[in-house]
Amino acid sequence: MSELRKDVISGRWVIIASERSKRPDDFRPAAARSTADGATAFCPFCAGSEAKTPPEVFALRSPGTQPDTPGWRVRVVPNKFPALERGQPPPPHPNVLFPRLPGVGVHEVVIENPDHELELADLPVKHLRDVLCVYQDRTRSIEEDLHYQYVQIFKNKGKEAGASLSHPHSQIIATPVVPKRVKEKVYGAERAFRTFKGCFYCRTLEEETGERLIFQNSAFRVIAPFASRFPFEAALFPVRHSPFFTDVTGRELEDLAAALKTTLLKLKGVLSDPPYNLVLHQAPHPALSNKTWPELGRSFHWHFELFPILTRIAGFEWGTGFFINPVPPETAAGFLRDASRTT
Amino acid sequence: MSELRKDVISGRWVIIASERSKRPDDFRPAAARSTADGATAFCPFCAGSEAKTPPEVFALRSPGTQPDTPGWRVRVVPNKFPALERGQPPPPHPNVLFPRLPGVGVHEVVIENPDHELELADLPVKHLRDVLCVYQDRTRSIEEDLHYQYVQIFKNKGKEAGASLSHPHSQIIATPVVPKRVKEKVYGAERAFRTFKGCFYCRTLEEETGERLIFQNSAFRVIAPFASRFPFEAALFPVRHSPFFTDVTGRELEDLAAALKTTLLKLKGVLSDPPYNLVLHQAPHPALSNKTWPELGRSFHWHFELFPILTRIAGFEWGTGFFINPVPPETAAGFLRDASRTT
Repeated sequence: MSELRKDVISGRWVIIASERSKRPDDFRPAAARSTADGATAFCPFCAGSEAKTPPEVFALRSPGTQPDTPGWRVRVVPNKFPALERGQPPPPHPNVLFPRLPGVGVHEVVIENPDHELELADLPVKHLRDVLCVYQDRTRSIEEDLHYQYVQIFKNKGKEAGASLSHPHSQIIATPVVPKRVKEKVYGAERAFRTFKGCFYCRTLEEETGERLIFQNSAFRVIAPFASRFPFEAALFPVRHSPFFTDVTGRELEDLAAALKTTLLKLKGVLSDPPYNLVLHQAPHPALSNKTWPELGRSFHWHFELFPILTRIAGFEWGTGFFINPVPPETAAGFLRDASRTT
Repeated sequence: MSELRKDVISGRWVIIASERSKRPDDFRPAAARSTADGATAFCPFCAGSEAKTPPEVFALRSPGTQPDTPGWRVRVVPNKFPALERGQPPPPHPNVLFPRLPGVGVHEVVIENPDHELELADLPVKHLRDVLCVYQDRTRSIEEDLHYQYVQIFKNKGKEAGASLSHPHSQIIATPVVPKRVKEKVYGAERAFRTFKGCFYCRTLEEETGERLIFQNSAFRVIAPFASRFPFEAALFPVRHSPFFTDVTGRELEDLAAALKTTLLKLKGVLSDPPYNLVLHQAPHPALSNKTWPELGRSFHWHFELFPILTRIAGFEWGTGFFINPVPPETAAGFLRDASRTT
């Protein structure tokens, strides 16, 4: 099992992932190339290879088909090389120079569709809606255990974005502590609520109807954030205030799928199918939110962040937390707004 | 001039760098390749090309040689495409949804030596000491203007680490606000001082004499941090407590150069000359430190962070601020400790 370690000064956690342990030679460019996922290599996520993954924990499948056989539309399996594993809940970490916890948590893979070549952007809206519905179902299921305090859902598309397998998939990692970045958002949102006498995100959406607007439909709005870190960064917000992604209704889910698909297609068209990260920002476990942050309900507003990987993080960013973005979000939004969906 | 923008929720700043403004086509792989810095391309940082850079602001040069001509050992010039530029100090930013400031600051390049092929690790200790001495001199000089609240010194080696020119160089960016990450360190260090009844870094150095120790000499210690984010991450600390890098004495600078050279050579040997980032963490402007953080002197302890670029930041990291590190720092320290210097 891996180990969680905390940097006392910054409050940042790291996972020392023993299951993935590597030697210096594994990082040589030649080694990296030979283990990379080629087009002709065997893929454990394709239909027919179900036996090559750990047994599925959930699937949307055709009536009458058996688990771990073909017939599924969306399939969820435990990660074969998990960063965190289900187990005894860790004790609270003590006030020591070197705080560590057992690497307890959940690490699952959402195989978005059986076809290796069909990317998230290419799925029919109905199928994309199913993927989002699975995100909700897995969040609810994992949150049945209160020890998993935060459920992080994300997608890495392309090697440059951190993907190690090319078959379209998302990942879910649930952590036994509330991550630093999530706390930062929760505290920051409440502080901003008090400053602006209302939800900061709702206020922002009221303003963002112009030069930074990328796309909108009746329930969702996609904008280029004012302080975008990356060229062509996008954020997708529900217009209806809610801290919990699991609160999105079936009807809204259809609009969300449409907004996400449109944005992904616009990015794909404008930037020639770039690698990207898609990151869901939802509230911590509802029980914990109510207990520890009773005001979170009014001030936090769930959303997706989406950014193509076009630039590098360098020393200045690591030192300061500043980002240098060579494309003003107004310019990026203009290109994306004007791009028509390509399919 | 570029623009500084603040994300209200997280307190993070970004620089929207109009001088480097790009269109979508600039990010296509082919375009990126054709503008990359090839071995045979013209280099503005080599000896003899002094006229191709903005006029030097500082240089260590042989007696009798003229500015902006050959004869220098270390040369500092303004960045030709600056992220920030000297100018009127910005007004304090108001409490609005979208805080912005003019991109006022300093952006300089430290050309570490006239020879294109001679990397920082390859310089004689005496020359490396000169480079570090220039870091000190530039910090002092920039801090003569109180409006530049933080001086960030860093080096990106290799394209993967964010370097756009291959001639060995470091960069200095001074910002008109104290960056989020620096505040986080300053506050975190003071909090840890109170918890542990002493400087957290000094206490850590007392403990780190074993499995995570990479190298030490009389005045400096290099360790693999307990909560390393990256494989083979290293941190270089002065044994003598001090928040200010500019306090390092001439005598200590020699030891620092030796410790840095040894560490760079070990990394180069163990990992086949990897791309890396070197980041100096120093205190904010001394006047500001005294005024705003009167206790900073006891709790902050300057240091370098050094990490090779071997893995990718992906969706999980962006969402949570967690990092997944596949090499335990004890393992990394073992490889680095045992590696002999290769020259």
